[in-house]
Amino acid sequence: MSAQRILCPRLRQRIMDADAAAALIPAGANVGMSGFTGAGYPKAVPQALAARMRAHHDHGEADRISIWTGASTAPELDGALAEVDGIELRLPYQSDPVCRQKINEGRMEYIDIHLSHVAPYAWAGFFGKLDVAVIEVAGITEQGELIPSSSIGNNKTWIDLADRVILEVNHGQSAGLDGMHDVYYGTALPPHRQPIPLTGPQQRIGERYLHCPPEKIIAVVETNAPDRNSRFSEPDEASRRIAGHLLEFFSREVDAGRLPANLLPLQSGVGNIANAVLAGLADGPFENLTAYTEVLQDGMLSLLKSGKLASASATAFSLSPDANRDLAEHIDFYRDRIVLRPQEISNHPEVIRRLGVIAMNGMIEADLYGNVNSTHVMGTRIMNGIGGSGDFARNGYLSVFMTPSTAKEGAISTIVPMVSHVDHTEHDVQIVVTEQGLADLRGLPPRERARRIIEHCAHPDFRPRLLDYFERASASGRGLHTPHLLSEALSWHERYEQTGRM
Amino acid sequence: MSAQRILCPRLRQRIMDADAAAALIPAGANVGMSGFTGAGYPKAVPQALAARMRAHHDHGEADRISIWTGASTAPELDGALAEVDGIELRLPYQSDPVCRQKINEGRMEYIDIHLSHVAPYAWAGFFGKLDVAVIEVAGITEQGELIPSSSIGNNKTWIDLADRVILEVNHGQSAGLDGMHDVYYGTALPPHRQPIPLTGPQQRIGERYLHCPPEKIIAVVETNAPDRNSRFSEPDEASRRIAGHLLEFFSREVDAGRLPANLLPLQSGVGNIANAVLAGLADGPFENLTAYTEVLQDGMLSLLKSGKLASASATAFSLSPDANRDLAEHIDFYRDRIVLRPQEISNHPEVIRRLGVIAMNGMIEADLYGNVNSTHVMGTRIMNGIGGSGDFARNGYLSVFMTPSTAKEGAISTIVPMVSHVDHTEHDVQIVVTEQGLADLRGLPPRERARRIIEHCAHPDFRPRLLDYFERASASGRGLHTPHLLSEALSWHERYEQTGRM
Ligand SMILES: CC(C)(COP(=O)(O)OP(=O)(O)OC[C@H]1O[C@@H](n2cnc3c(N)ncnc32)[C@H](O)[C@@H]1OP(=O)(O)O)[C@@H](O)C(=O)NCCC(=O)NCCS
Ligand SMILES: CC(C)(COP(=O)(O)OP(=O)(O)OC[C@H]1O[C@@H](n2cnc3c(N)ncnc32)[C@H](O)[C@@H]1OP(=O)(O)O)[C@@H](O)C(=O)NCCC(=O)NCCS
Repeated sequence: MSAQRILCPRLRQRIMDADAAAALIPAGANVGMSGFTGAGYPKAVPQALAARMRAHHDHGEADRISIWTGASTAPELDGALAEVDGIELRLPYQSDPVCRQKINEGRMEYIDIHLSHVAPYAWAGFFGKLDVAVIEVAGITEQGELIPSSSIGNNKTWIDLADRVILEVNHGQSAGLDGMHDVYYGTALPPHRQPIPLTGPQQRIGERYLHCPPEKIIAVVETNAPDRNSRFSEPDEASRRIAGHLLEFFSREVDAGRLPANLLPLQSGVGNIANAVLAGLADGPFENLTAYTEVLQDGMLSLLKSGKLASASATAFSLSPDANRDLAEHIDFYRDRIVLRPQEISNHPEVIRRLGVIAMNGMIEADLYGNVNSTHVMGTRIMNGIGGSGDFARNGYLSVFMTPSTAKEGAISTIVPMVSHVDHTEHDVQIVVTEQGLADLRGLPPRERARRIIEHCAHPDFRPRLLDYFERASASGRGLHTPHLLSEALSWHERYEQTGRM
Repeated sequence: MSAQRILCPRLRQRIMDADAAAALIPAGANVGMSGFTGAGYPKAVPQALAARMRAHHDHGEADRISIWTGASTAPELDGALAEVDGIELRLPYQSDPVCRQKINEGRMEYIDIHLSHVAPYAWAGFFGKLDVAVIEVAGITEQGELIPSSSIGNNKTWIDLADRVILEVNHGQSAGLDGMHDVYYGTALPPHRQPIPLTGPQQRIGERYLHCPPEKIIAVVETNAPDRNSRFSEPDEASRRIAGHLLEFFSREVDAGRLPANLLPLQSGVGNIANAVLAGLADGPFENLTAYTEVLQDGMLSLLKSGKLASASATAFSLSPDANRDLAEHIDFYRDRIVLRPQEISNHPEVIRRLGVIAMNGMIEADLYGNVNSTHVMGTRIMNGIGGSGDFARNGYLSVFMTPSTAKEGAISTIVPMVSHVDHTEHDVQIVVTEQGLADLRGLPPRERARRIIEHCAHPDFRPRLLDYFERASASGRGLHTPHLLSEALSWHERYEQTGRM
């Protein structure tokens, strides 16, 4: 088996099993792992490491590591290591239920970071020394070059910065991925940074392979396992309505001459609403679209196939098993249209701003003035993290945030007087959409934003109380730039905590 | 007099007095004016306009305009027009006491915008149509090219976008400014944007003059008046201590290899603390410094003179009368070392990130987790605006926020449980400094940030209560990622509103 995927003789000598490789990761190490939205994460070494940790912990020996990744991974990595209390500190993004619980119980440290900041901060030494990298690849060439797998994320950075590198060669990844990647090797620390010469989503500016000095590679582990591959679910009614409002808005913007007929490069988060938007685009009037985004989910492949989407740039896939099969079957078609890049390029403010990306992201809640909370439930409990939403929202041509107007079967209004945590400030949020409607906040001062958000986005069950809050705040005799009743501003959240309803 | 400054015969025919020029600005217009931090704003037309408005208002006739500028201006512009209730809507930044009062009384609309967003949004049409531009220049060449004055700000954009242009030629501006400017004409709307080829603070990538088709120029008004020129005051004790902590930190970073010996290009706000930092640098060990900032204040000139600062890039001056005299006297020296650029370049995320700027900005308050409020007093009343602080903080190599630990003679703690408005999120704030000390938040999860901010930055009078809040929040049984007591989080602000003390 290794004959096909590990062509470099020197590195073949490093082949070992996952337990042996995991033994090379010392307790207390800072470990950079591959993985982005459940794609391209190492499948065997983290589980072997978790088993070792459990054994150590059973004997009262401390055995934990800090884990740096691209973004979220999967149960085999975050779940397995969190389960055994093996993660001291985690960065920069996670979405694992076990991790989330440990973090919110104060048993695991988590730093939530803009995805575009991670590589530069790591290079600058702000996180300390990276000891080991554990990276999934799709294969190793005869010259020892590494064929990236279904995500690139921070792999280039981890390989460059770590003293020692452990590779997982996953035979389950399509061999046809080879040639889809574009690894940019032109970044540097200031004062040596140069312009990033990317001017279109499909342009290639880098190299096909990841490079690593072979003497750094201390282990090669073979696996054959699919990415997490969560099932695709048909968009629900609320998502379809959100998508409908957004597509109508795009049409109006095209008519007004504020968007080209083929829009601008699209960025979209993953999940139900994003799928609905992509489905809407598949049925909509726009042709020759492009995407410059983090993650390619099922809907992006369908759009490429239908010809509506001309090309797509991302740092990772996040596909259902069906879509994954389709990708493998038509890999030549997709390779001509898809570029996978390091996340420092997919999320780079310079490039996002230059391309004029249309940023479309989910949120937990928005407030009257357009501040958005993407990360915290009731101000204290982390959900996932900010991910790349700030990179895209701040630098995009348009920044759109979307959510159903209620959560938990109507108990929670996602439009609140004041958000309980701010990830995107009023300065960075242009368009808020719920199934109720779309609030276009561009060029509006705060009080007009409030009226528009209440009227267009709030659920009718909460609208009167939001209006009442806003009117009383406006009559309170306090400042009228951003009227608030400080003693009530967070009372909706407090009420939810106490009664289970806002 | 005009013979020296207005060399273009065609434009000399457009010379008129300020009243006649003001009469060309229709009520209800969107007007783009020059001006950035009290430099280079039109000195005569706004006052003439204010007089007309007052007369109209006395007769019960509506006469207001919307004003877009670079940043803050001066009493002759913002003050005069606000005084007569002549401003319908103001963007993107102001710091005028009369404006501030009207905004906070709900009698003037204000949109507070990242300075780097203004030109792109205006070009995209997000603010509507720009009708008239009123721009101060230092002179007009024989070919009708415009010599910029003591600030550039958004002047290029306003001139390009407006239907009609009114020029104020200010004989009071040093003629030697000619040649100091670098007006970049390479911006575009997506999908046509190209990399901005700037790789060093002193590099010139643009043109010496502003261009305007002469047929758009409907009036030329001559003035002879200095910029606002606020007096320079010696840094106070708190500012000197803040500067001291910061300079110590820089030295440690150089020793640790995380900063070059000549640091990286410096950005600094204006005011007391900024002056103290510059004074500290003048006495400090760092040589061959550079600045890539918005505004050059007195301290920057001194640093250039002493040779410590090799070169400086900005979009405006903000000088005391003494420093202004010095600038005029040694204009050739300064012209070799200073570049003034449009604010879309001085504040461009692409360039700030590439250069690795050290961003140092003032703030109103910070909270336990490193969220920063730069704009709102007690959550509702605007102070000035976010200005360029977000452009620099998000994209800089280091983002530093500074404030004395108390305000209003100790009645207010500038370190609070939760900020009453967020302009810079926990994801964007690395270093918090007060006269008490410096909290280095890099690589720290939220609860460790809290401990460090309380210990290093809070005033001893408030430290025990902050610690108490944090400990009770941590024991509350709610989420431990970002512990908060929602019913108390804003109570310090509420208490201040009710009792005059936090
Ligand atoms: C904000 C975010 C969590 C929304 O996720 P989603 O899958 O689109 O939305 P859902 O409606 O399914 O909500 C997810 C969960 O949050 C809950 N939720 C949503 N809004 C809530 C609110 N205001 N208060 C409390 N809980 C809320 C939902 O009930 C659901 O809970 P469950 O998992 O227990 O059923 C997600 O978009 C995210 O993590 N964003 C930040 C990162 C990002 O934007 N990445 C995009 C690409 S860069
Ligand atoms: C935040 C900011 C207002 C601080 O200004 P400063 O001049 O450095 O600070 P000062 O300590 O003199 O404070 C200014 C005023 O705010 C008040 N203030 C400061 N902190 C306060 C707080 N936490 N609560 C209430 N008032 C506060 C001061 O008392 C003072 O009031 P006064 O004018 O009535 O005396 C100013 O830096 C700013 O506008 N920043 C945003 C824009 C920006 O960062 N631009 C920089 C370049 S891009």
